[in-house]
Amino acid sequence: MAEHVDGARDEILDRLVEWLRIPAISADPGHTADVRASALWCAELMGTIGLEHVQLLETDGHPSVYGDWLHAGDAPTVVVYGHHDVQPVDPLAEWVSPPFEPTVRDGQLFARGAVDDKGQVLYHLEVVRALLARDGRLPVNLKVLVEGEEEVGSPHFEALLERERDRLACDVVVVSDTGMWSDTVPSMCTGMRGLVACSVEIRTASVDLHSGMYGGAVRNAAHVAGELVAALHDADGRVAIPGFYDGVEPLTDVVRAQIAALPFDAREFAAQAGGAATYGEADASTLERIWVRPTAEVTGLASGYAGEGVKTIVPATATVKCTFRLVPFQEPAAVVAAFERWIAARTPDGVEIVVHGLGEGVAPALTPLDHPAVVATARVVERVWGAPCRFTREGGSGPEEALGRVLGVPVVFLGVGLPDDRIHAPNERIVLDQFWKGLLATAELWFELAAVGPDLPRHTPGVR
Amino acid sequence: MAEHVDGARDEILDRLVEWLRIPAISADPGHTADVRASALWCAELMGTIGLEHVQLLETDGHPSVYGDWLHAGDAPTVVVYGHHDVQPVDPLAEWVSPPFEPTVRDGQLFARGAVDDKGQVLYHLEVVRALLARDGRLPVNLKVLVEGEEEVGSPHFEALLERERDRLACDVVVVSDTGMWSDTVPSMCTGMRGLVACSVEIRTASVDLHSGMYGGAVRNAAHVAGELVAALHDADGRVAIPGFYDGVEPLTDVVRAQIAALPFDAREFAAQAGGAATYGEADASTLERIWVRPTAEVTGLASGYAGEGVKTIVPATATVKCTFRLVPFQEPAAVVAAFERWIAARTPDGVEIVVHGLGEGVAPALTPLDHPAVVATARVVERVWGAPCRFTREGGSGPEEALGRVLGVPVVFLGVGLPDDRIHAPNERIVLDQFWKGLLATAELWFELAAVGPDLPRHTPGVR
Repeated sequence: MAEHVDGARDEILDRLVEWLRIPAISADPGHTADVRASALWCAELMGTIGLEHVQLLETDGHPSVYGDWLHAGDAPTVVVYGHHDVQPVDPLAEWVSPPFEPTVRDGQLFARGAVDDKGQVLYHLEVVRALLARDGRLPVNLKVLVEGEEEVGSPHFEALLERERDRLACDVVVVSDTGMWSDTVPSMCTGMRGLVACSVEIRTASVDLHSGMYGGAVRNAAHVAGELVAALHDADGRVAIPGFYDGVEPLTDVVRAQIAALPFDAREFAAQAGGAATYGEADASTLERIWVRPTAEVTGLASGYAGEGVKTIVPATATVKCTFRLVPFQEPAAVVAAFERWIAARTPDGVEIVVHGLGEGVAPALTPLDHPAVVATARVVERVWGAPCRFTREGGSGPEEALGRVLGVPVVFLGVGLPDDRIHAPNERIVLDQFWKGLLATAELWFELAAVGPDLPRHTPGVR
Repeated sequence: MAEHVDGARDEILDRLVEWLRIPAISADPGHTADVRASALWCAELMGTIGLEHVQLLETDGHPSVYGDWLHAGDAPTVVVYGHHDVQPVDPLAEWVSPPFEPTVRDGQLFARGAVDDKGQVLYHLEVVRALLARDGRLPVNLKVLVEGEEEVGSPHFEALLERERDRLACDVVVVSDTGMWSDTVPSMCTGMRGLVACSVEIRTASVDLHSGMYGGAVRNAAHVAGELVAALHDADGRVAIPGFYDGVEPLTDVVRAQIAALPFDAREFAAQAGGAATYGEADASTLERIWVRPTAEVTGLASGYAGEGVKTIVPATATVKCTFRLVPFQEPAAVVAAFERWIAARTPDGVEIVVHGLGEGVAPALTPLDHPAVVATARVVERVWGAPCRFTREGGSGPEEALGRVLGVPVVFLGVGLPDDRIHAPNERIVLDQFWKGLLATAELWFELAAVGPDLPRHTPGVR
């Protein structure tokens, strides 16, 4: 594969540059036509390289792109997931070279979407091209799904998966939209936290009251809100809601050791976190806190008047917005129910507090470490990067969870992004060495998966 | 006086109705000309009844009206304070009769401004008319000051007082803009709480962070805000800021007994307070809590995103707005300083918290119960209403404090409003029996003050 690619590097990068020139900003209605142009460009490439059944999968928003190659017989079937839409580019003035004029400097290609995610989709497509050109076949059955709304929260993605469940039937999903610890410490993600959000509405009186006439003698909704927020965690930084930790698996020594083995740099973390001071559960490390421990975060707080100057009122209402990040095997609905019980037990006499769950939430996702596809991916990463593959988690939640859940298969993450790639920020880049390694690793992974095929648990539609 | 008034009741009410027809809404720029028309109407009446030096006192906002009668020689000099501007009238649909078409029903005159405050100014002017007509003189030197911006917080009033300090030199101020406990439990106000406001700005990071990537491992500004709010009071409802109570005079048995003697009805209080549950310092009654105890109220709270739906962020900033209601002899600047020290001591490592004092604040005001003018007023109230005069306080702060402070004299409150008069709300009214009693009481007060004149501490300009 390496030899085959070596002669084609310039033309491969030219194709990536061409795609990156299309400003497919899904969040900006002014770029709706560009997102579609990006989808059409991707579809045309799919057709050129030999994928079949190529088509746009329309949604109520921006389209996804689909293509497959299904002639590998009994070999495993893989869905590759990526996305072709990109983040907005503000602040434009901070870009060294314009976001949609891709530029190579120092072995890095700078452009919006370079690593998130067009670059990571493109090396997959170039592997298909190379293998079909060289061998006339792929070692696995391949289905490529390139979403168009990932950067706006994938609002129509789960509906699309439900609708296309049969078309997307597979044995494993390979997600190509993530990163690794560093170029010298390669890693793969093996899980993401779940998420459920609640809104708490507090009412202490029918109207805001005059703070002179009533202050000191009546319940104040802002005080009630403050007391709830303060009570959410105990002195050790643990969530104080009884039942919140139900279902949480204790951290195994293996996972703890995997996390401890990573060369975590507290100063670097603080810099990435806008200078925020680290703080959290007393007996957990920072990486454990963001990857494998559940959280309760207040994401929004409003009561009374907080604008310029001051209003002399006793606020009658307050809103507290919370998100709970969940880990296996917490259940979103059970967490909301525990929160509601906790609130009910703490509601002062004469105060009304209503908890609204915001949506159904997202369950935590965990890829079993001993799954043959995970083991195979780790083997490939170790070989291509020349260093042991570490195992990480993601603290957030993405469309990957829906992929695994709706399709009923494990999700494996093979991504080449680096922490300094500035995704979502000015001067996004992909390190070209990582790009080429990603291309090589992908090709090797298909052969590895074909080889472990007989050991791979096969997907029976309708059964997870 | 009663005989003199009896024959003139209809024409007095006709004059009040005429004034009330002018929609002098100071908050509404569309009514600026009406506020001026109201001032001119008042000035014209002042001239008609025999006041001298009648003029509008212009400010950077709406004008005040001034007139005097200064021929009582060595008798005390009294400034009467009231205001001619009125509150907005929304919601208009809830008025039984239109707000600017004054209507008498069941012995009550309904109109915006009926009791707050045109009705209470008018009976003062009618007393002047009646006494000058009957006796050709007043028993005291009288200066009448009718403000035009009370309903918008008197933004230019203190500057006007400073400017007109010499013209307004007096021995006592009589404020005619308040109420009494009830028509059968007459009372006078003897103090108002002071006020100082602060804004607390919390910052935990340079930008809001992703709650998936950082949640659980970094400081959250909303949590810091909640903890401050919760810590503001101890378990007994006392303000937990060290030094906050410095200067607070212990409640005397006399004042406690005065307050306890009032027929307080908890159900009625809750109804007026929009159904709010009573809550506050463990060892104080509701009236003590709002009148004679200082408070810390959070009046506004904002952090992160509290609108529709949810943003998955760890908020980097939070704002907490506070007002402190003060009692004698707390000092606004000292309270702000104590608050700043408390915040500094509680600021977590890596978090930035800045306290901004909002304005200089208003000191608490207290009229000495043994001042001859207070004793005289209580005597008059008892005689006119046929029941002992009780002593109350006001929980809020108003221009009255500036009157006492700038002019350097005690402020006496003689007001006939009742709790059900719906000031600032639809269907404002004045109970006509209270109006006539107010007129009688005012006339009697001038004679009482003249009689106690020799005992009255006289004002030496520049000395309080």
